[in-house]
Amino acid sequence: MKLIIGNKNYSSWSLRGWLACKQSGLHFDEITVPLFGEEWESLKRSSDDLAPSQGKVPILWDGDAVAWDSLAIVDYLADKVGRDRFWPKEDAARAMARSMVAEMHSSYLSLRRHCPMNIRARVQLPGLEDETRTDIVRILTLWAEARARFGKGGPFLFGTFGAADVFYAPIVSRFLTYGIGVPGFAQAYMQAVWEHEWMQAWIAAAETEEWVIEQFEHPVT
Amino acid sequence: MKLIIGNKNYSSWSLRGWLACKQSGLHFDEITVPLFGEEWESLKRSSDDLAPSQGKVPILWDGDAVAWDSLAIVDYLADKVGRDRFWPKEDAARAMARSMVAEMHSSYLSLRRHCPMNIRARVQLPGLEDETRTDIVRILTLWAEARARFGKGGPFLFGTFGAADVFYAPIVSRFLTYGIGVPGFAQAYMQAVWEHEWMQAWIAAAETEEWVIEQFEHPVT
Ligand SMILES: N[C@@H](CCC(=O)N[C@@H](CS)C(=O)NCC(=O)O)C(=O)O
Ligand SMILES: N[C@@H](CCC(=O)N[C@@H](CS)C(=O)NCC(=O)O)C(=O)O
Repeated sequence: MKLIIGNKNYSSWSLRGWLACKQSGLHFDEITVPLFGEEWESLKRSSDDLAPSQGKVPILWDGDAVAWDSLAIVDYLADKVGRDRFWPKEDAARAMARSMVAEMHSSYLSLRRHCPMNIRARVQLPGLEDETRTDIVRILTLWAEARARFGKGGPFLFGTFGAADVFYAPIVSRFLTYGIGVPGFAQAYMQAVWEHEWMQAWIAAAETEEWVIEQFEHPVT
Repeated sequence: MKLIIGNKNYSSWSLRGWLACKQSGLHFDEITVPLFGEEWESLKRSSDDLAPSQGKVPILWDGDAVAWDSLAIVDYLADKVGRDRFWPKEDAARAMARSMVAEMHSSYLSLRRHCPMNIRARVQLPGLEDETRTDIVRILTLWAEARARFGKGGPFLFGTFGAADVFYAPIVSRFLTYGIGVPGFAQAYMQAVWEHEWMQAWIAAAETEEWVIEQFEHPVT
């Protein structure tokens, strides 16, 4: 398998695709293409690897099968290695995990816009838009409920590390790097994610990247 | 099981959730709540049924399990009745179907905004935004590829009716009701979807609804 991703410092959907591949336990080659530079523009036009999504990353190639979206990658891999590696066994927990992941996939546009993932950043924002606050409260509410109802088996949303943690990992990064204040239970959860060995490997790689994307260093506020 | 949906004439995500329940073959009760009226506002504040999504529909309740997003509903049901009812068996086809569904879930914002689902409408738009055109071309490209590579077994995207058709059914409705010109292969596909007995039942119900939502009758152009 071959996973195409963007810059580790900035590409939140790539982080999800990459964590999903790690979670599968399968071997994969990883190809990083630098977002938004000249190389990116010319690759978008010329690369067969990037064609299925018209240039968006992540993209997973597995022989002639291609999954070009982070959520499709999760379930393509779950089909391959067994659902239980990604999703809780119990129906009520799995229904919640699937809903939280789908909600992440289509929502929180204000938080995504005003606080783009930037692993190296340590910024204290002067203030937040109302919509960004609403996104943050919603996410904390979901985390609280998942942890309280289904989190007994470990420090992650549904106990052990799974698809829901894969999807909310870039949110953990945003909350930490933008200094968003959160209650104690969320701090503990975020610490567990941040210290996870795969996250640590991703963070270390992000810190050594030399690409700087101005629009993410100075997002619209 | 109990499925909560919005107005059949306008609620595109509800149509997806409802078709998914039909596709499961399981019995379900259906509860329609009228979007955006006074009843909706008071239900959003008071109804435990609507709480998991803070009022967004569709929501599927199955005992104490709740899936509150259309894509989560598809895979929750696929978990329950077997993946093959929703997704192609073959890896390359399934990877494409999952990617197309995920792309529908997070994309085409211009088409969704300028051409909101309105089953009863028959409108010829004076012109389309560039971004709306881009969305339409992308969708037709995906349909063409799915039909050509994987559509041999029937008239639907991957042959027999499945999750990809469930997700693109509201697009079929938009293309028809807004008079979007499409090539012949797409006309044939759209006809197969429109004439499907579940679609016909949904359309008939939409036509008898008396609610009118002004913002969807006169979308931003
Ligand atoms: N829904 C897609 C989103 C992918 C996406 O938007 N990726 C960004 C990077 S994080 C991208 O490739 N942007 C470049 C572009 O739009 O050309 C997914 O879940 O994978
Ligand atoms: N991502 C959700 C979207 C659900 C959604 O936005 N539903 C609309 C109706 S089609 C809704 O409930 N709008 C009412 C509101 O936002 O309060 C899904 O896939 O189910």
